[in-house]
Amino acid sequence: MKELSKLMEYRESVRVVDATLRDGGLVNDFYFTDEFARAVYETNIRAGVDYMEFGYKASREMFDESKFGKWKFCKDEDIRAIVGDNDTNLKISVMADVGRCDYKTDIINRSESPIDLIRVATYLNTIPGAIDMIEDAHAKGYETSCNIMAISNAQESDLVVALDLLGRTPVDVCYIVDSYGALYPEQIARIADVYMNFAAKYGKKVGIHAHNNQQLAFANTIEAVGDGADWLDGTYAGMGRGAGNCAMELLLGFLRNPKYKEYPAIQFVDQYISQLKKEGIVWGYDLQYLMTGLLNQHPRTAIAFTKAGRTDYAEFYREVVAQD
Amino acid sequence: MKELSKLMEYRESVRVVDATLRDGGLVNDFYFTDEFARAVYETNIRAGVDYMEFGYKASREMFDESKFGKWKFCKDEDIRAIVGDNDTNLKISVMADVGRCDYKTDIINRSESPIDLIRVATYLNTIPGAIDMIEDAHAKGYETSCNIMAISNAQESDLVVALDLLGRTPVDVCYIVDSYGALYPEQIARIADVYMNFAAKYGKKVGIHAHNNQQLAFANTIEAVGDGADWLDGTYAGMGRGAGNCAMELLLGFLRNPKYKEYPAIQFVDQYISQLKKEGIVWGYDLQYLMTGLLNQHPRTAIAFTKAGRTDYAEFYREVVAQD
Repeated sequence: MKELSKLMEYRESVRVVDATLRDGGLVNDFYFTDEFARAVYETNIRAGVDYMEFGYKASREMFDESKFGKWKFCKDEDIRAIVGDNDTNLKISVMADVGRCDYKTDIINRSESPIDLIRVATYLNTIPGAIDMIEDAHAKGYETSCNIMAISNAQESDLVVALDLLGRTPVDVCYIVDSYGALYPEQIARIADVYMNFAAKYGKKVGIHAHNNQQLAFANTIEAVGDGADWLDGTYAGMGRGAGNCAMELLLGFLRNPKYKEYPAIQFVDQYISQLKKEGIVWGYDLQYLMTGLLNQHPRTAIAFTKAGRTDYAEFYREVVAQD
Repeated sequence: MKELSKLMEYRESVRVVDATLRDGGLVNDFYFTDEFARAVYETNIRAGVDYMEFGYKASREMFDESKFGKWKFCKDEDIRAIVGDNDTNLKISVMADVGRCDYKTDIINRSESPIDLIRVATYLNTIPGAIDMIEDAHAKGYETSCNIMAISNAQESDLVVALDLLGRTPVDVCYIVDSYGALYPEQIARIADVYMNFAAKYGKKVGIHAHNNQQLAFANTIEAVGDGADWLDGTYAGMGRGAGNCAMELLLGFLRNPKYKEYPAIQFVDQYISQLKKEGIVWGYDLQYLMTGLLNQHPRTAIAFTKAGRTDYAEFYREVVAQD
C-alpha cells in the first residue's frame, strides 16, 4: 500500500509539463489562435506549471506548412512572439519525433532560442535515432527528455536494453508513455519499477505521459508519481489525441506543492476550452477509445470513427475485434 | 506494488452489481421506460453481471409517487413485470435508505418476492437504524449489504466502531462508498485495509461504490478489487448522480473471469444510453464535480449548477470555495 504521506506532503523534485498545444494540436492540426497560445502560456505561469510544450519541431520537408498550424513546426520566432524573452519560471519545451525532425538545422543553439527542453519521442526500434537527437540537443545546450512511446506493446527485456542505452547518454528524463491508453495502474507500477531502477543506476529522472482511453490517464499519472516518477504531463481539459491526456486541472488539484494553483486552470478551461468544444473540436474518453485501449491497439481506427461522426459503437467493436 | 497476477487471473468470489436504474435513476427521477429496464436486465444476463439493482424501496408516505418513476419505489409486482420468475443467474437487488423506507411493510418475505438482496444505505450516524433494517431483511430471507455513505467525511475511528457493530449482524457485505468522489486510490487502499480487517474478523465481504468526480471511479474500483474487495458496483456508461459511477463497460473489460462479456455492454450503451443522452439526460465528469470532489463536498451544488445549464465554471469555483 502506498503511504498517504505522499498525498499530504510533496516532493520538490516534481515537475508538471503542460502539453496542451502539442498533444492537443493533434486534434485540430495545430490551428490554435495566438490568443489561445498566449492564454495557455499565461495560465501556466499563474498555475505554477513548470514546463510548457508548444508543439512539434516537425520537418518542413516532410510536412506541408500550409496544411498545419504553426505549432507543428514551432519556429523559434513563433514561440518568441508569444513569450518574448520569457523572463518567468516557466520553461519552454518542444517535441521532436525521431525520423520526422530536421534537428541538425531546425534546432539552433539554446543560447539563441526561447526553448529550454527538447523532448525526443521515439519507439523502441528507433532508439539509436533518439540518442543522436538527444546528443545533438544536449550539445546545443538544451535539457533533454526521451519519450518512449507505445510501451504497452513493448517487451520488458527490450525496454531494459533501451533504458541502458539511454542511461549512457546525457538525457535528463525518460518517460513512460502509454500511447494506447492500455495500461492499468498495477502495470504502471511495475513499469515504473523498471524505470526507477534505471533512474537510480544512471542518475536520471522518470516521467509519465498517459492517455485516457480507459479513464485512467489521471489515475496512472498519480500511480506513477507515487512510484517515484517526477515529470508529469498534463493538458487542460485533457485535450489530446483520441481519448486525450491527464487533465491538468485534476493533476494540479492533486499535487500538494503550494506553488501549484487550481484556479487559473479552471479559469482557462472556462474561458478557452469550452469555446473550442463549441467550435466542434472533439476529444476525450468515449467507447471507441475504450475499445482500442482494451485491445492495446493504436487509436487510429477510433480516431477515424470519431472524425467520421460515427456512433455505431457495437459495429465498431466488431471491426476492431476482427482486426485484432 | 500489487501483483499483475491479479490482472491475469481472477477471483471466483468477485461479484459485479449493476446499479444503472438505481444510481442512474437519481439523474432522471427514475423515469425509465419498461423497454429500457428490460434491456438493462437482458444485457446484465448476457454480460454475466451478478446482481441488478432496480432502484430504491422508498417510502410512499415520504415521497409522492406521482413525482417519480416506478423504480424509486420498486414494488415487487413492477420488478416481476420485467423479470417474471427470473429463472436466470442474475440476482435482483434494491436499495433501502435508512429513514426513507417503510421496510417493515414494504419489504415482504423473500419467498414471495423477486428480490434477492436488500442493500441498506446509511450514514455513519444512523448505523443502529441500518442494523434494524439488515436484521429485518435477513429475517425475511434476503441477502443483505450495508453501504456506508460519505466515507470520505468520516473519522476512521468511528468507521471502525461502525464496522464492529455491523460485524455482529447477519449482514453479508459492507461497502466502501465514496459518495463525494473525493478519494484517491491510495486512500481507497488504506480504507480497504480497515474493511478487510473487519471482513476477516467477522467473515464478511467488502464492496466498493465509487463516483467519478475526479475521473477515478474505475481506478478506485480496480484499486479496491486489488485490495480484496469482492463486490463491485458499476453502471452502464457510468450513469449515476452527478459525475456518475464506475462504467460497467470499463469494469467488464478489466475483469478476467470469462463469464463477464464486454460486447453486450457495448451494445447496450450503443442502443440505449446514446438515446438517453440525445434526450438531454446529463451526467458524468465535468469541472463542477471535480471541484466538489476536490473539496470533499456533497455534489448537490454541482448538480444544481448542471441542472441550471450553467457553464461559468470559474464563478462556481469561487462559490464552492467560499462555502468551504
